[in-house]
Amino acid sequence: MAIIVKKFGGTSVGSVELIRSIAKRLARDYHRGDQLVLVVSAMAKTTDNLFNLAYEITRHPSRRELDMLLTAGERISMSLLSLSLMEEGITSISFTGSQSGIITDNHHGNAKILKVNAFRIHEELAKEKVVIVAGFQGVSTAKEITTLGRGGSDTSAVALACYLGAEKCEIYTDVDGVYTADPRIVPKAGFIKEIGYANMLALAYSGSKVLHPRAVEFACKYQVPVEVKSSFTFAPGTMIRAEESPKDCSMEDRFVTAIAHKDNIMRYRLSPNSRTIDLLKAWHHEIFKFAKVDDALELYVEAKYEAEIDYLLSQHGITALAKEGGLGFVILVGLGLAADPAYLARVMDLTADMRVERIAHSERSLELMLPTQNVARAVALLHQELIGENT
Amino acid sequence: MAIIVKKFGGTSVGSVELIRSIAKRLARDYHRGDQLVLVVSAMAKTTDNLFNLAYEITRHPSRRELDMLLTAGERISMSLLSLSLMEEGITSISFTGSQSGIITDNHHGNAKILKVNAFRIHEELAKEKVVIVAGFQGVSTAKEITTLGRGGSDTSAVALACYLGAEKCEIYTDVDGVYTADPRIVPKAGFIKEIGYANMLALAYSGSKVLHPRAVEFACKYQVPVEVKSSFTFAPGTMIRAEESPKDCSMEDRFVTAIAHKDNIMRYRLSPNSRTIDLLKAWHHEIFKFAKVDDALELYVEAKYEAEIDYLLSQHGITALAKEGGLGFVILVGLGLAADPAYLARVMDLTADMRVERIAHSERSLELMLPTQNVARAVALLHQELIGENT
Repeated sequence: MAIIVKKFGGTSVGSVELIRSIAKRLARDYHRGDQLVLVVSAMAKTTDNLFNLAYEITRHPSRRELDMLLTAGERISMSLLSLSLMEEGITSISFTGSQSGIITDNHHGNAKILKVNAFRIHEELAKEKVVIVAGFQGVSTAKEITTLGRGGSDTSAVALACYLGAEKCEIYTDVDGVYTADPRIVPKAGFIKEIGYANMLALAYSGSKVLHPRAVEFACKYQVPVEVKSSFTFAPGTMIRAEESPKDCSMEDRFVTAIAHKDNIMRYRLSPNSRTIDLLKAWHHEIFKFAKVDDALELYVEAKYEAEIDYLLSQHGITALAKEGGLGFVILVGLGLAADPAYLARVMDLTADMRVERIAHSERSLELMLPTQNVARAVALLHQELIGENT
Repeated sequence: MAIIVKKFGGTSVGSVELIRSIAKRLARDYHRGDQLVLVVSAMAKTTDNLFNLAYEITRHPSRRELDMLLTAGERISMSLLSLSLMEEGITSISFTGSQSGIITDNHHGNAKILKVNAFRIHEELAKEKVVIVAGFQGVSTAKEITTLGRGGSDTSAVALACYLGAEKCEIYTDVDGVYTADPRIVPKAGFIKEIGYANMLALAYSGSKVLHPRAVEFACKYQVPVEVKSSFTFAPGTMIRAEESPKDCSMEDRFVTAIAHKDNIMRYRLSPNSRTIDLLKAWHHEIFKFAKVDDALELYVEAKYEAEIDYLLSQHGITALAKEGGLGFVILVGLGLAADPAYLARVMDLTADMRVERIAHSERSLELMLPTQNVARAVALLHQELIGENT
């Protein structure tokens, strides 16, 4: 009997109605004979609300107490899901990160998983129970409650799948899976049924929000097959796994697998001195990208973090050399694009009027930085010219 | 009976003595029962010498005639190898790129492989012959002789392995395999027995010379297992394949797989106008890296190409905004390094006195640009601190 880990994000368990409907669908999977381990996030907005409560009390909450507070969020969603499953006649049991044996280091707020002692989960599965595990949390080697930081629930799910020897890890979310570009910008974007870890990792780092890069790294490192699928339809989604299916049209053809983009990015330029290095060591926020260009260290972050980062800078006594907003990124992901001058020429031709300020490439991506207002047009045009309708 | 493709580079077949000694070793493999397909480069320096002969005649040799000339190089090495095998009592037959069915597009000097019609190879293998194929060359759909450009022989070998359904492709070269850093700089560098395609691709793009990025892309796309090994010892080398073996010490540990470096790089800064785009379309030389930074397109190339590139620029009527030499790159390759501010801080701390001008990261690498004279020191220090002696 195969173990399947299924992870439900905050929007998927955002209301009692949604939780009930998920429980009904899960009941069918259960009766089909799979052993189910469910990983849940806190209900949408719960974590932010708890955060705000803490910050109403103090601007400098203790990280330990903050972790204690935040981990309440998953307790709520997982117990509600457990109750809903019982209503469907299924015996289930919910576990905190600690009870489920997720051992982390001691970095409150941004802990890394060290190992998973999953024997309690195995015991309960053996009793034919559905096991529900709180995502995003663990227990440190010092027996303290920790949270895993951004992408934490995805990472919990993939780590559990790995340690449990699960057949696969299913990530249920509010989209159907991965597309060749954002369907809101490119209505003819193609659905990707299967994608390799390396391309998915490049996409995840490039702003695709369906799966956190940290979880993709984990999946890749331990070769865990992951399926991203809709929590509303449970329809087959995008499979992420090692094998990449070759296109047999032309062996050495350069081709773009997908186009990712990112809007509303801010750039902080900082002096690369010891204070800045201290700042980086203490960094707790999601960072999109960094670069050192000549005399400035550049940090690229989403605009929504501006206030937090300004605060962090002031705490470290740092004045930014410059701060700009309204930046966007368009990233072509695919094998064989790197360091191909002819491909670069084609992309420069196509985007000649889009005020592209920076271009960079990695092993499997070509990245353009341009004003946010040109992002949608660039994605649409590059998709049309480089991917087309039939993918 | 498994088909094994073995490729021998220019230094491996650099003299009659070397060719004879390879034939003796191959005889043993043959008697062990494998079906052998050998891909050979021209003897070391032959291609350069032929190039020079053509340029003595004209500064503007026809690309078609140049391809005709250059492909003579592999004819020499493959027939010598075939004769040496016959001396060992083994029936062998040599094929040009055309005879072996390597079909390319029409780009003389830099052709891409479209497909391989390998029936003649299969016929000869069925007669228990060793088949020797000229690397680096093919025949275009217009029936013209083409060469594949840089990395051509590696690419021929991997493409043949793919089309023949070979068990693996062995690349024989003048080193034992892949190390965690260049052993000439880091005497304690560790030997890597097995590496995944994605990390190998990042290394190949970062200046590791053991296998050309183009061949790694091919191997990755078609999942061909490749072994890089010494043509002097035939000892087991580095296996490149899909699976990456997890380190079980700490699940989410960031770790550096290997450190690559590149010396003596030149940077051309060009205006990103239509002339420059035309130049890129006509580009035929190996390019290490390109980037657009603010108002300049930057091309990074090895210093040895300086004269050729200056000539190409003048042909296109382009004056560089700036031209600098003496640049070096140090690239940390490994999963989980990307966008980790704490890791960046650590690397900045370690290299604080090394005049690092640029830092960039991709999904699985962190790249420093610094003066060539600081490269060896940076590699040694970063290896000691981030990889250590035991790998």
